[in-house]
Amino acid sequence: MLNTLRTHIEKLVPLTDEEFALVSSYFTAKKYKKHQFLIQEGEDVHYNYFVVKGLLKLVYTDESLKEYIVGFAMEDWWESDFQAFYTKTKATMSLECVEDTEVLCLQLDDYKKLCAALPKIEHFFLEKAYFGFIAAQQRIISTMTSSIKERYNQLLEKHPSLIQRVPKSLLAAYLGVSRETLSRLSS
Amino acid sequence: MLNTLRTHIEKLVPLTDEEFALVSSYFTAKKYKKHQFLIQEGEDVHYNYFVVKGLLKLVYTDESLKEYIVGFAMEDWWESDFQAFYTKTKATMSLECVEDTEVLCLQLDDYKKLCAALPKIEHFFLEKAYFGFIAAQQRIISTMTSSIKERYNQLLEKHPSLIQRVPKSLLAAYLGVSRETLSRLSS
Repeated sequence: MLNTLRTHIEKLVPLTDEEFALVSSYFTAKKYKKHQFLIQEGEDVHYNYFVVKGLLKLVYTDESLKEYIVGFAMEDWWESDFQAFYTKTKATMSLECVEDTEVLCLQLDDYKKLCAALPKIEHFFLEKAYFGFIAAQQRIISTMTSSIKERYNQLLEKHPSLIQRVPKSLLAAYLGVSRETLSRLSS
Repeated sequence: MLNTLRTHIEKLVPLTDEEFALVSSYFTAKKYKKHQFLIQEGEDVHYNYFVVKGLLKLVYTDESLKEYIVGFAMEDWWESDFQAFYTKTKATMSLECVEDTEVLCLQLDDYKKLCAALPKIEHFFLEKAYFGFIAAQQRIISTMTSSIKERYNQLLEKHPSLIQRVPKSLLAAYLGVSRETLSRLSS
């Protein structure tokens, strides 16, 4: 599992064996079954999760208990309720397994210690946050300017393997359409 | 102008006079008149802009020349076409003055040099990028789950001074409604 993390980090910053030993000492490995929760709305958020294997959904539930999928995370993606994680407030979203999932978990205090000890890793997280921001902004633009059909096609182009793995009902909840509308678009 | 930048950075990381002298040596001050462009779609993006005074709009224009407001930036905000800036590609958005505006400009190479020279500043930009990502994600959730009326009220609560300064036609383009619909909501 740790090799996956090393390969992932080294796409942006090279590490010596010693540096990676330091990095990996801050992570804990966990395994979850399909339908298990990593984060539950209203509870503390202990970790930022790096997905080694599997598929997660980040879900916002409104007052009428309608579920909205804010995002998916699969291999090589980081996921959490980032606001709650970073500000040590209660989760406003839940994070749940769509498939059996293996993650590496990083606590906030350890994240801060690691960044302070190894500026390379702070640089790595800056790149991740920067491109996370850009991706979120592009999703905002896409939602403003594109039809559901165009957004489905953009998703298919950017993340073809995600579309294959995610059940159609969840994909519909992510795009904000009914299951029936999605079937017409994707057929 | 530079004092504004120092106060802004020191909300997150304290700086010695020597450190701030280094930081400020990388910035160039510029002034623009209302309606002038800082970034034009299709052209190079030379800078990340810190707004000292004034108001900017970040605009995406679709194929039929319809304009969508991706965001506003006023005092103490950073703005650019961040993807184009960071990847040295052509702008896909434009950045234009809604009011006469004073900015401090940071080039990409200087940004990288500054982060390498002063890890505190890299930490500052990580915090900015992290909370920029969280704000963008919350806007996505708000767009998915809230009515236009609710989104108008959220904006009013978060940025009351922005609502007062932005012309109603631009606010409508930001919220994705007609000028008439916005008038009904805000009356």
